[in-house]
Amino acid sequence: MTRHEVVRELELIAELRSRLAVADPRLARGLGDDAAVVRGRAYAVTSVDTMVDGVHFRRGRLSPREIGHRALAGALSDLAAMGVDGRAAPGSPGGIQAYLALGLPGGFGLDEGRALLDGAAELAGAHGVTIAGGDITAAPALLLSFTVVGWADDPGALVGRDGARPGDLVGVTGALGGSAAGLAVTEDRLVGLEPSLAEALRRRYATPTPRLAAGHALAEVGGVTAMLDVSDGLATDAAHLARASGVAIELDLDALPLGAGVADAAGLLGEDPAVLAARGGEDYELCFCAGPASRSAVEEAVAVADPTATVTWIGEVTGRAQPGLRFRGAGPGELSGFEHRF
Amino acid sequence: MTRHEVVRELELIAELRSRLAVADPRLARGLGDDAAVVRGRAYAVTSVDTMVDGVHFRRGRLSPREIGHRALAGALSDLAAMGVDGRAAPGSPGGIQAYLALGLPGGFGLDEGRALLDGAAELAGAHGVTIAGGDITAAPALLLSFTVVGWADDPGALVGRDGARPGDLVGVTGALGGSAAGLAVTEDRLVGLEPSLAEALRRRYATPTPRLAAGHALAEVGGVTAMLDVSDGLATDAAHLARASGVAIELDLDALPLGAGVADAAGLLGEDPAVLAARGGEDYELCFCAGPASRSAVEEAVAVADPTATVTWIGEVTGRAQPGLRFRGAGPGELSGFEHRF
Repeated sequence: MTRHEVVRELELIAELRSRLAVADPRLARGLGDDAAVVRGRAYAVTSVDTMVDGVHFRRGRLSPREIGHRALAGALSDLAAMGVDGRAAPGSPGGIQAYLALGLPGGFGLDEGRALLDGAAELAGAHGVTIAGGDITAAPALLLSFTVVGWADDPGALVGRDGARPGDLVGVTGALGGSAAGLAVTEDRLVGLEPSLAEALRRRYATPTPRLAAGHALAEVGGVTAMLDVSDGLATDAAHLARASGVAIELDLDALPLGAGVADAAGLLGEDPAVLAARGGEDYELCFCAGPASRSAVEEAVAVADPTATVTWIGEVTGRAQPGLRFRGAGPGELSGFEHRF
Repeated sequence: MTRHEVVRELELIAELRSRLAVADPRLARGLGDDAAVVRGRAYAVTSVDTMVDGVHFRRGRLSPREIGHRALAGALSDLAAMGVDGRAAPGSPGGIQAYLALGLPGGFGLDEGRALLDGAAELAGAHGVTIAGGDITAAPALLLSFTVVGWADDPGALVGRDGARPGDLVGVTGALGGSAAGLAVTEDRLVGLEPSLAEALRRRYATPTPRLAAGHALAEVGGVTAMLDVSDGLATDAAHLARASGVAIELDLDALPLGAGVADAAGLLGEDPAVLAARGGEDYELCFCAGPASRSAVEEAVAVADPTATVTWIGEVTGRAQPGLRFRGAGPGELSGFEHRF
């Protein structure tokens, strides 16, 4: 490490520390000691999500601020998928803490570092998340690994991936395909799209929203048996859920909720919109199973918790024989006949 | 990512999962769901430590097994420095959990990955630590970021860096300089040293032991006012402690406990052994302050907890005026006159 890089890291550590100045009464010790000390609840719910330049994003195509936001959003999305309650009353134990391992390549400036922390801190602030610690080091490429910790009094209040039952409906929050289309925008693969629509799709990719409020509402309402977040694409993630639960899932390709502009974008890309929605990753929506009796309670709970997360029902758990995921759907799309079997 | 790399990552994730097969009753959910769910105690004590190839180690000079061990040891050392109780009774809440974000470069084989996990798992097992989750991704260089979580019922049972008081004695566990000498061995800079001594020094560098038992004993015995682990070298770390506590510390260069072989190694390197011990990093010993009345109780508590961690008293907290670190010591060493002032 050059002296310049050492100075940059010390300054960024000071920046991180200054972001802790917002006193969090749950934080008995924070950055500056060997470890952070946090007042929690009975069960810690912990997830780690790492994003590396050249693998999960490209520096030139996202601003540092967006990179910081996106990395934290990806990690928080996993807590949303467990149904964690991120909104503990001020002063009460719990909430959500985030710890950042940040690797900085040579030439990554202090201003860029500040912007990256700002992006993460802004998202954290919007969701009541405290950035409670971390580590900054030199690295051959920009990398961010967020460890996020939420809390529960009872593990039964959380929703895993493995509880889906035959007869359950399969639902998804919000809309799909927008992030994949937004990625195409950042890669200049979407030529001819209306500029404001292109920018909206780009933002969908660059600054996703973790569905914390909707996830907690889904865990709380009762009847939701399994849940995960759509990070690798619905076709992949719903198959994970089917495997973890040991059930067969059938989804209607035509029922998938398409994000605004996704149909136009798919047209320009020469793809079937529903296939783009099924395959496209990083929408960070929630896919879940619920007993049919819970249908309207689930819809209502999510509508109250987050009006932007409207539930769409996209299929059913058909049984336990031949566990896996199948798509029903007309049309010559790539996913007709698409099948995950284990 | 190539298909080969994807397969390697899926296989390594399966390996990680198999290492969780040792049922930990504190773990309500582990790898395979969106997050790990752990039964904890009132306060979570969390630290993040990242090691990157080319920055914190070099792949060619350490085996994958050693790299896995060393990365986890570095993280656990921070919990040791807080005085965390890592040895909760089986089934009771608490213990220590580790979460690994692992970045694998192209060409890093599955066998190497397994060996790396083995090294971490073996150290974890020896200290009652559960590897409870993580993330594996492609990366431009091998990197390991461990987030470790310990627990306390009361934050007052932990020892920070900021409590040192004038009149306190300054102590250190074990011996110093061995890791710096071992690094010189791995870099072929120590020619002529007796081979078994060279190998012992190499191991001191490659597979350090986090002082968890000694750290907890020091927190429990009473009278210990401040503590940190010696990761950047005593000269740097004791200055951190002085700054955090707002006190002046004077250390006796001649009093520093030298690791076996350090004097010989220093001779071959043309360095003053005490200076090597003061400057050399990554010994992962504990440096702490304690009231003089606690002197023998501290010695006894550490001797009982870990006979290899024998305490040496190396100086005092002299006051609050001109906070900083000074070394007292005869000889023409680089550290006579070495001074950290803030």
